[in-house]
Amino acid sequence: MTLCTAFDFEILHRSKISRARVGRIHTPHGVIDTPNFVAVGTNGTLKALDSKTVTEIGLQLMFCNTYHLLLQPGTEVVRKAGGLHSFIGRNMPIITDSGGFQVFSLAYGSVADELKSRGQKSSGNLVLKIDEEGVLFRSYRDGSPILLTPESSIAAQKDLGADIIIPFDELPPYHIGEEALTRSIDRTHRWEERSLAAHQARPQGQAMYAVIHGGAHLELRAKSCAHLTQLPFDGYAIGGSMGKSKDEMEKILSFTLPLLPEDKPNHLLGMGDLESIGRGIPLGIDTFDSSYPTRAARHGVLLTKNGAVKIEKSIYAEDFGPVEEGCTCTTCTHYSAAYLHHLFKAKELTALTLATIHNLHKMCEHMADVRRQIAQDLV
Amino acid sequence: MTLCTAFDFEILHRSKISRARVGRIHTPHGVIDTPNFVAVGTNGTLKALDSKTVTEIGLQLMFCNTYHLLLQPGTEVVRKAGGLHSFIGRNMPIITDSGGFQVFSLAYGSVADELKSRGQKSSGNLVLKIDEEGVLFRSYRDGSPILLTPESSIAAQKDLGADIIIPFDELPPYHIGEEALTRSIDRTHRWEERSLAAHQARPQGQAMYAVIHGGAHLELRAKSCAHLTQLPFDGYAIGGSMGKSKDEMEKILSFTLPLLPEDKPNHLLGMGDLESIGRGIPLGIDTFDSSYPTRAARHGVLLTKNGAVKIEKSIYAEDFGPVEEGCTCTTCTHYSAAYLHHLFKAKELTALTLATIHNLHKMCEHMADVRRQIAQDLV
Repeated sequence: MTLCTAFDFEILHRSKISRARVGRIHTPHGVIDTPNFVAVGTNGTLKALDSKTVTEIGLQLMFCNTYHLLLQPGTEVVRKAGGLHSFIGRNMPIITDSGGFQVFSLAYGSVADELKSRGQKSSGNLVLKIDEEGVLFRSYRDGSPILLTPESSIAAQKDLGADIIIPFDELPPYHIGEEALTRSIDRTHRWEERSLAAHQARPQGQAMYAVIHGGAHLELRAKSCAHLTQLPFDGYAIGGSMGKSKDEMEKILSFTLPLLPEDKPNHLLGMGDLESIGRGIPLGIDTFDSSYPTRAARHGVLLTKNGAVKIEKSIYAEDFGPVEEGCTCTTCTHYSAAYLHHLFKAKELTALTLATIHNLHKMCEHMADVRRQIAQDLV
Repeated sequence: MTLCTAFDFEILHRSKISRARVGRIHTPHGVIDTPNFVAVGTNGTLKALDSKTVTEIGLQLMFCNTYHLLLQPGTEVVRKAGGLHSFIGRNMPIITDSGGFQVFSLAYGSVADELKSRGQKSSGNLVLKIDEEGVLFRSYRDGSPILLTPESSIAAQKDLGADIIIPFDELPPYHIGEEALTRSIDRTHRWEERSLAAHQARPQGQAMYAVIHGGAHLELRAKSCAHLTQLPFDGYAIGGSMGKSKDEMEKILSFTLPLLPEDKPNHLLGMGDLESIGRGIPLGIDTFDSSYPTRAARHGVLLTKNGAVKIEKSIYAEDFGPVEEGCTCTTCTHYSAAYLHHLFKAKELTALTLATIHNLHKMCEHMADVRRQIAQDLV
C-alpha cells in the first residue's frame, strides 16, 4: 500500500530480453514516460534555461536540490509562493532530494574528491555536528547554523511541494570499513523511517522514494533492500557509492534491482550520462538524474548521434549546417554549427542557452528512442 | 539622390510642438518604426538572448560591431554564411558600425576613461600606426596585424551585409585643442568620402549613414554638417564627443540637427538611456543605440513605469507579483519578482536572460508610447 493517491506507476511493456520496462509514472503534475532522463535544476532553474523553454523541450521530470533551496531563497518563501511549481513557473513533475548528499559532501568531500585524493574540501568546517538527530551545519551564505534532520528535511520538502520527495540519508565516505558502513546504513534506515513518518503525517499528494544504500558491499545492499522494501515507499532510489567504475556500478545494480519490488519505479541517483543510462536500463532503472548533459553543453560539448562534439573546434568555424543534421531542436532548426562555434569563441551567454537546449532535447529524444527499443524487445 | 533603392525614410507625422517626428525606415529586412531604440548585439547576438527571442520581443533594429566581428569569427566567415542576417538567424534590420570607434578607443581610451582620468588603457599598445591610410592594430585574439581603412571597413561591412552601414571615421580624444580637432574632422571627412566611394562601387542594397563630428565645438559641428550633407548619404548619425553632461549633449544636438536634411533619418550613436532618448526626440533624433538596457538587466536593474528597480533588494524576496504589474513581456507573464530576485541571488544564468527580455520589451514599449505621444503632438 502506498500513501500517495495521485501517484501511480504503470508498466506498459516488459522487455523479453532484459529487466528493462516501458512505463508511466503518474504524478499530480502529469506523466513521466519511463525510462526517462531527469535534468538537474539545483536552484529551481536549469542553468541558462527558463521553465517555459524547458517545458517546450518536453523534459518531463526536473530534479531540484533542497539543500540549495533551503539556503536560497529559503523553503518558506517557496511555500508562500504556492510551492516550487508555482514559484518557478513549471507545470510538470518535479523531484527534490533531502539535502543529505550535500551536507555530507560538505563533511566528507564528494566521492570524486576522495577517489582523486583531493582530500577534505575547505568547506568541511561548515559542518558543526553529526549525530543521531541529524546534521548541524553553517549556511555558506550568511553563516547561520542550520539543523538538517529527517523531520526538517521533510518539512522543507513539504514547503517545496515536489511530486516526488526523498528521505534524509547519510552519505558515508567512500573509503569506509564494513563495520562503519553497517553503522551508517543502520542510521540511514532509522532516518528514512523517521522521514517516512514525517511524510505520512502530511502526505500532500507527494510520493516518497526510499534511498537504497550499501555502497559496493552487496550484502549491505541486500540488507538495505530487505529493510526498506518492508516500508510503504512509492519507489526506490539507488544511492550511496556505486564503486569506482561503470563495471562496478553495473555489478551493484545487477545485484540490487532484483531485490526491489517489480511494480515500483526505480531511480538511479546522480548518474545520467549515456553510458550509465545504457547499462542501467536493461537492469530495470526507470529514471536517471544527472547534470552531465547541461554541464557539458555549457562547456561547448554537444551530444549528437555521432557522439559528443566539441563545438569550439576549428572544423566547425565554417560549418553552416546545424550541429546535427535532422535534429528538430530549436537550436538546430534556427542556428548553424558555425554560429554556435562563434558564440562560444566570443564567450557569449547565448552560446550556453543554445547548447543546453540542444543537449536536453537530445536526451529527451534518446530516452524516447530507448522506450521504443524496449517496446520492441531490442533492449 | 540616394543610392539604395530598398532603403526609404517616410515621415508620417511631425510634432506641432517640437522637431520630433514619427516615421518609418524601410529596409531590405523590413520596417523600423521611428523614433526607436536600437539594441546592441556586439558579437552578432544580444547578450543572453538568441535571435528568435529578440524577434519575438519585436526589436526592429539591432546594432552589431564590425570591429568585434572582424576579429571573431571574421567577416569572411559571415559572408560565406550568406551575411549576418543568415549567420545569426535574424530576419529584421541590422546596422553595423565601421570599427573606427573601437580602434580609436584602443588608441586613446574611451571618452569615459578620459573624463574619469583613467588615462590610456593598457590595450593602447595594440594600435601600431594611425595615418591618412587608416589604423594598423593588433588583434587581441591572436596578435595578427589588421589594417582598418575606409575601404577595408566598408569591405567588411559588405561581407556582413547589414541594412545600414557606417563610414570609417576618427574618434578624436575628448581633450583635444580646436586645431587638432579640425584636422581630425578634415581627415574624418576624407575617410567618409572614401567610405562612400567604396560603398557606391557595390551598394548591395545597403544604406549608408554619414557620421557628423565636431565634438562640443558648434562651429565644427556646422562644418561637418555642411560638408557631409553635400554627399549622397541615406541618413545621418551623430558621433564624436557629446560633452560632459546631458545638458551639453542637448545643446550640441539642438544646434546640429537643424543643419541636417529634414527628410533623412537621424541616429544618435551610443546613447540610448531614457534621459538621452527623452531629450533627443524633441530635437529630431529618430534612432538611438545603447547597451544600457541590456547591461542594466544583467546587473539586476529592471526598468519599470516606476523607474529602474534593483531586483536583488530584499523587498523583492517575497514579491510574488510580476516585476511590473500589467507588463506583457514573457518574463512578467510567467515569473514573479521573487523568482527573479532568487535567480539573481543564486547567480543563475537564467536571471540574465529573463531580466534582458523584460528590459528590451520595456524599451520597445517605451518607444511605441513615445511615437503615440508625438502623433498627438504631446512631445
